[in-house]
Amino acid sequence: MTSQSQNNMIQEAIRAQKTREFFAAYPENPKAYAEDANQKGLEVFQKQLNQNFSLGAPENHSHWVGEEVSPYMMVGLGIRYPQYETQLLIDRAKNAWSAWKNTTVDERGSILTDALNRVSNRFFEIAYATMHTTGQSFVMSFQASGPHANDRAMEVISLATEELNRFENTVDWVKPMGKFDLKIHKTFQAIPRGISLVIGCSTFPTWNTVPGLFASLMGGNPVIVKPHPKSVLPIAIVIEEIRAALKNAGQDENLVQMAADTIDNPLTKELAQHKDVKLIDYTGGSAFGDYIEALPGKITFTEKAGVNSVILDSVADAQAVFGNLAFSTCLYSGQMCTAPQNIFVPSNGIKTADGHLTFDEVVAGICGAVKALVENPKMGPYTLGAVQNDLTVKRVDEAKTKTTVALDSLTVVHPEFHDARMKSPVVMVTDAADTAVWMHECFGPALFVVKTESSAQSLELAARAATELGAITCLCYSTDTNFCKQTTETMNAAFTPVSFNFTGAAFVNQHAAFSDFHVSGGNPSGNAGFTTPEYVNRRFVWVGNRYL
Amino acid sequence: MTSQSQNNMIQEAIRAQKTREFFAAYPENPKAYAEDANQKGLEVFQKQLNQNFSLGAPENHSHWVGEEVSPYMMVGLGIRYPQYETQLLIDRAKNAWSAWKNTTVDERGSILTDALNRVSNRFFEIAYATMHTTGQSFVMSFQASGPHANDRAMEVISLATEELNRFENTVDWVKPMGKFDLKIHKTFQAIPRGISLVIGCSTFPTWNTVPGLFASLMGGNPVIVKPHPKSVLPIAIVIEEIRAALKNAGQDENLVQMAADTIDNPLTKELAQHKDVKLIDYTGGSAFGDYIEALPGKITFTEKAGVNSVILDSVADAQAVFGNLAFSTCLYSGQMCTAPQNIFVPSNGIKTADGHLTFDEVVAGICGAVKALVENPKMGPYTLGAVQNDLTVKRVDEAKTKTTVALDSLTVVHPEFHDARMKSPVVMVTDAADTAVWMHECFGPALFVVKTESSAQSLELAARAATELGAITCLCYSTDTNFCKQTTETMNAAFTPVSFNFTGAAFVNQHAAFSDFHVSGGNPSGNAGFTTPEYVNRRFVWVGNRYL
Repeated sequence: MTSQSQNNMIQEAIRAQKTREFFAAYPENPKAYAEDANQKGLEVFQKQLNQNFSLGAPENHSHWVGEEVSPYMMVGLGIRYPQYETQLLIDRAKNAWSAWKNTTVDERGSILTDALNRVSNRFFEIAYATMHTTGQSFVMSFQASGPHANDRAMEVISLATEELNRFENTVDWVKPMGKFDLKIHKTFQAIPRGISLVIGCSTFPTWNTVPGLFASLMGGNPVIVKPHPKSVLPIAIVIEEIRAALKNAGQDENLVQMAADTIDNPLTKELAQHKDVKLIDYTGGSAFGDYIEALPGKITFTEKAGVNSVILDSVADAQAVFGNLAFSTCLYSGQMCTAPQNIFVPSNGIKTADGHLTFDEVVAGICGAVKALVENPKMGPYTLGAVQNDLTVKRVDEAKTKTTVALDSLTVVHPEFHDARMKSPVVMVTDAADTAVWMHECFGPALFVVKTESSAQSLELAARAATELGAITCLCYSTDTNFCKQTTETMNAAFTPVSFNFTGAAFVNQHAAFSDFHVSGGNPSGNAGFTTPEYVNRRFVWVGNRYL
Repeated sequence: MTSQSQNNMIQEAIRAQKTREFFAAYPENPKAYAEDANQKGLEVFQKQLNQNFSLGAPENHSHWVGEEVSPYMMVGLGIRYPQYETQLLIDRAKNAWSAWKNTTVDERGSILTDALNRVSNRFFEIAYATMHTTGQSFVMSFQASGPHANDRAMEVISLATEELNRFENTVDWVKPMGKFDLKIHKTFQAIPRGISLVIGCSTFPTWNTVPGLFASLMGGNPVIVKPHPKSVLPIAIVIEEIRAALKNAGQDENLVQMAADTIDNPLTKELAQHKDVKLIDYTGGSAFGDYIEALPGKITFTEKAGVNSVILDSVADAQAVFGNLAFSTCLYSGQMCTAPQNIFVPSNGIKTADGHLTFDEVVAGICGAVKALVENPKMGPYTLGAVQNDLTVKRVDEAKTKTTVALDSLTVVHPEFHDARMKSPVVMVTDAADTAVWMHECFGPALFVVKTESSAQSLELAARAATELGAITCLCYSTDTNFCKQTTETMNAAFTPVSFNFTGAAFVNQHAAFSDFHVSGGNPSGNAGFTTPEYVNRRFVWVGNRYL
């Protein structure tokens, strides 16, 4: 791909960003790829097992570390990554920075678009790497870690290109002083903030990592990626390709480095607290996210936990709603930050186009839809995927002991992977007053149907959860225009977007690049979002010089 | 002024902002005003003395407070302002917010432009109010608190208008799904963050306050202004006019309130820590600024202390340089956040077009220029103005005891105000190694000439001071292109803008709206600047709703 066509792609992306219309730089349908691409990707992945993955990085590593375990095979992948002393990573980043900060915005955009093209040649390999670290299904692994992650990166490249060209670089300023004009020549430059640390999570190792990574690079900053020790390979492949693109362009590859570590000896705090680290991106739990946000002198971009609500008021087609909710809940076994957790239903039930449904009938309907999906052999295992972490299973089992279980986990055997860690969603029923049960994040395959006095109370509780605990999504089913309006106002005031009456192929879990903002940044679920202007422009500083 | 012409003005301001060219919505030459405007402004100011100033605010105040003292007359102004309980201010702000947050961006811009026009009718009154609270000269009081402050407000209105129109409000999103298209209607809204607290300073009560005030209002937020107890009247007049514009437009005046307090019983922490206060603007000392920045859950915009450097390497016309430095130092007796403090001069002196000057000759030249300006009866008193605060005098006297004094304060009597608190700049000489002397902010009429090994060391020390203590400006005199380039790179890396070889009418102290960014936000002198995109867009949150 030529630099010219890369620049055209960026211009097209800027246009798409402005109108927030659907944009896809990369075909997301695997059929669009070469017929043997899938097979070849699988082979490359398989050859990598039990081998060292060096990322083409220079030597001087202190250890080889690797502790990824396939949630499908329940065996370690045996892949080891070089680990480096923190100060060595910092020194290399500084070194690589000296040339990069003087590159033009166009050069950066062109090199990073080249990197995305290189990454797209490895989508299948990345898909298998994602599948066997996160437990996502193959299709989700392909989409989320491949084209959708690349789209998010492209979105960042386009927005950063626009922001960095926001002001004229040189201006001749003239001030009439009466008898003469005062003339001053001024230059304006976007100065990069400094070393950027991007901390990845275990469930979406590329999708949640590339926006911060690309935003920092576009802003002229060197990046150290600290992946989750259990989900390294997908982002390691991406980093390898960015390094290849940098090398090809004559830049120092160490502009992007990977800081591998282990669960027992994490390097995250040492890196985050280092005085030369100025920018921190973080995806993960709230406790650590709060620590990151409170670090003095750092600019942080966080995505933390949230409690997503469904407000069930009145529906046209109850079965379509239950089916939609079941899919959103089962998708990747509820391990999405966008998945619903609490479904608020009035105690006197809901109106439907086919008559009234009691509270118990609603619960039964949801349970039935989950059961039907889970037990559908062509759909269930592929929708659920596997559970990334044992703790997720334990968390859900613990939750079960505290309230009424309407539908327990069903036995699901993955047809290809008999040892896969499977856990279908547990549907629990609780009362609005039992906040100890539902008023906290229960990440994983758990769904609480919360009995409320009325839809008004449902809305009030959904807003309270969003304000106090954070929320990334909210789903509202209502045929009452006024209630929809109230819900919009109340949830938006809690900085939570609302999706209305989603059925069919529209799912609340999906946040599309170039269209949906992901995380508003206004409630405790995170302080930043993909991709608002400040997500990129806080990574550099405008400085103007003046020459008489 | 019609709404249409107000909107035209905003569009013009947006264009000017993009090109960062000189823009003046309001004539800054007092001669452009009515012939009796000055006299009338003075009379209104005089009538206000020893009277209550109610801001047209509703009752229920708990006290009347006021402790402003004229630095020119050294007597209290006797003006008292209503003080309210914090919770009452918060409740009124929330109340006023409910309608304001649903106004359109155009409505907000139009009402606030009307407010600026109303303010412009009171420029002379504001000038006298500023003069007799801050100690600024009449001309500076007029410019800084009048047209220049209005320009900064207009700059914010224009940038916010652009940011708030950044994304389409409605989009029909279509995703091809193979056999069918998935169509989702999406809306995007900028949701205001919440109550905004704007904390003013004693020296620039309107110029430093209106940017945050107008930015928060444009973002849809209610504002509580907490002025410095010693500089209330100038911003009280501005607030009165904003309230009048709001009332005229049918909006709740309490959208902008003033929280008067006293030195002994400050309300600032109580307001800042209130859970409903989400945005805080602050101008003032570093210790309190650090406290503000560290408050959890608040978005802050701070301008704190800094140590501004002059790097003297080589000059064309030494006398022109000394004259320029003398003016920048004498202007408002060094009480500007942009004023130079430390002049770094190599021990072996500097090259000039007329030959070499030794270090001592440079010191003598600076002292001579300061003396000549101060002792010029037509220039000195009017350039110096008066000193706002006794502590500033004490600080400089304390500094004098710690190093060599090359030029002590001279006796200056203001021809109109014999009791004025006058203090001409003290020029001190110190060695680079004596960091205890010069490596801290000494706000006020104090200038340190710091003897360095070389210009390279001068640059290194200037950058170190900027990085560790913050800097808002840097002045460099050099005829060496390479050294200028190095200075640009090094100081810009410390997020400090550099002005090169300023002589004549170009002064480092001046930061013009629509042209100069004021405070970069990248070093300890503050975390935000007038006016970058994030200065406005962090005051609201983009939230998108989706409708199937």
